[in-house]
Amino acid sequence: MKLLEEKILQEGVVYPGKVLKVGSFLNHQIDVPFMSKLAEEFYRLFEEDPVTKVLTVETSGIAVGYPVAERFGVPLLFAKKNRSANLANDCYSANVVSYTHGRSYDVVLERQFLTGEDTVLLVDDFLANGCALEGLIDLCGQAGARVVGAGIVIEKVFQEGGRKIRERGIRVESLARIVDMDPEGGITFAS
Amino acid sequence: MKLLEEKILQEGVVYPGKVLKVGSFLNHQIDVPFMSKLAEEFYRLFEEDPVTKVLTVETSGIAVGYPVAERFGVPLLFAKKNRSANLANDCYSANVVSYTHGRSYDVVLERQFLTGEDTVLLVDDFLANGCALEGLIDLCGQAGARVVGAGIVIEKVFQEGGRKIRERGIRVESLARIVDMDPEGGITFAS
Repeated sequence: MKLLEEKILQEGVVYPGKVLKVGSFLNHQIDVPFMSKLAEEFYRLFEEDPVTKVLTVETSGIAVGYPVAERFGVPLLFAKKNRSANLANDCYSANVVSYTHGRSYDVVLERQFLTGEDTVLLVDDFLANGCALEGLIDLCGQAGARVVGAGIVIEKVFQEGGRKIRERGIRVESLARIVDMDPEGGITFAS
Repeated sequence: MKLLEEKILQEGVVYPGKVLKVGSFLNHQIDVPFMSKLAEEFYRLFEEDPVTKVLTVETSGIAVGYPVAERFGVPLLFAKKNRSANLANDCYSANVVSYTHGRSYDVVLERQFLTGEDTVLLVDDFLANGCALEGLIDLCGQAGARVVGAGIVIEKVFQEGGRKIRERGIRVESLARIVDMDPEGGITFAS
C-alpha cells in the first residue's frame, strides 16, 4: 500500500537491530483518519469473507482493529497478555514466546466471546517472528472458530513469521512489507 | 446516560468486592457501534472546547478514545504503563499507585507528542480511586498542556477518585455513575 509506505518513510525512525519506531501514527500517537484508510484496505482484501469477529491482541492491535471491526460491522475482540500462570477455566489460553523481549507470556480470551460459530479476521500492527499471531490462531483453534486470514500493517519480511504462517495455509495480507532496514541505509520495501 | 445504564444492567456482572465486569462490550469484546454512541455523547459534552489531542492510558482506554478522537478530528494518544524504572529522557513520566492491584507503575508518554500548544481531553473506561487519571493529568502538567476535562465511561462514585479530581477544579463527565453494587442487590446508579 503506497500510502502506508510513504507514511513509514516520512515518519518512521529506524534504530540499530532493525527496530522500526512508528509511534507518531500507529502505536503511541494514533493518526485516526489514516487508520481508517488502512481499515478500508483490509476490508477490500477480506470483504468476500463472512467475518463475524475481528480478533487482535493488546495493546497496539486495538487501534488497528477498531476501524476494521467498524467497517465489517462486527465486534472487536482483543486477547489479553497474562504473565501469571493463574488462569481461569473460562478462558482459552496460548503460550507465546517473545524473542524480542526474551520472555514468554500467555494470551487469554474468555470462552464466551468466541465459539465454533465464528469466522475470524486476525489483525495486528506488526508481524515479525509470528509468535503473537500463532497464539491468536491457537485461541481460534481452541474455540473451533474458522480463521479467514490475518491483516497486518507492517511485516518484517526478513523475519520468519510470515513464511511460517503462510506455510500453514493461512492467508496473510500485509499492507507494507519491509525486506531490509538500517539506520544508515533506510528502509527497503518488497516490490 | 440512560442507554449505557441499560447496557450495564443487561450485560454487566457484579463480583464480590464491588468488581464490575463489562467485558462483553467495553474492555475485552468491544461493541463498536455502541462505543460510537458513547463518543457522540462525549463530543456533545466537550464540543465547545478547542481539543487538539485525546489522551488515554493503555489498554482499555484505547477503544474508548478511538471514536472520541475520530469525532473531534484529532489524534489519539495513549500513555504506556511501564513497570521498569529505566526511562528514556525523551519521555514524560508519572508514578501511579494501583490500590486494586497492590502495586505501582509509571505511565509514560514521549515528549514529542504533547506540548504546551495542546488542549487535551482525557478519556478512560473506569474512574475509581483516580490514580490513573491523576497520572495523565500529571503528564499534561509536565508538557504544559491545558486539560479541558475527563470523559469517563463508568465512575464508581463510592470510591474517592471523582471527588478528588473535581476538587482540583478539573471537569469530570462520567456517562454512568454507580453509587453502589453487590452480587445480590445489583447496581444502583446516581440519579
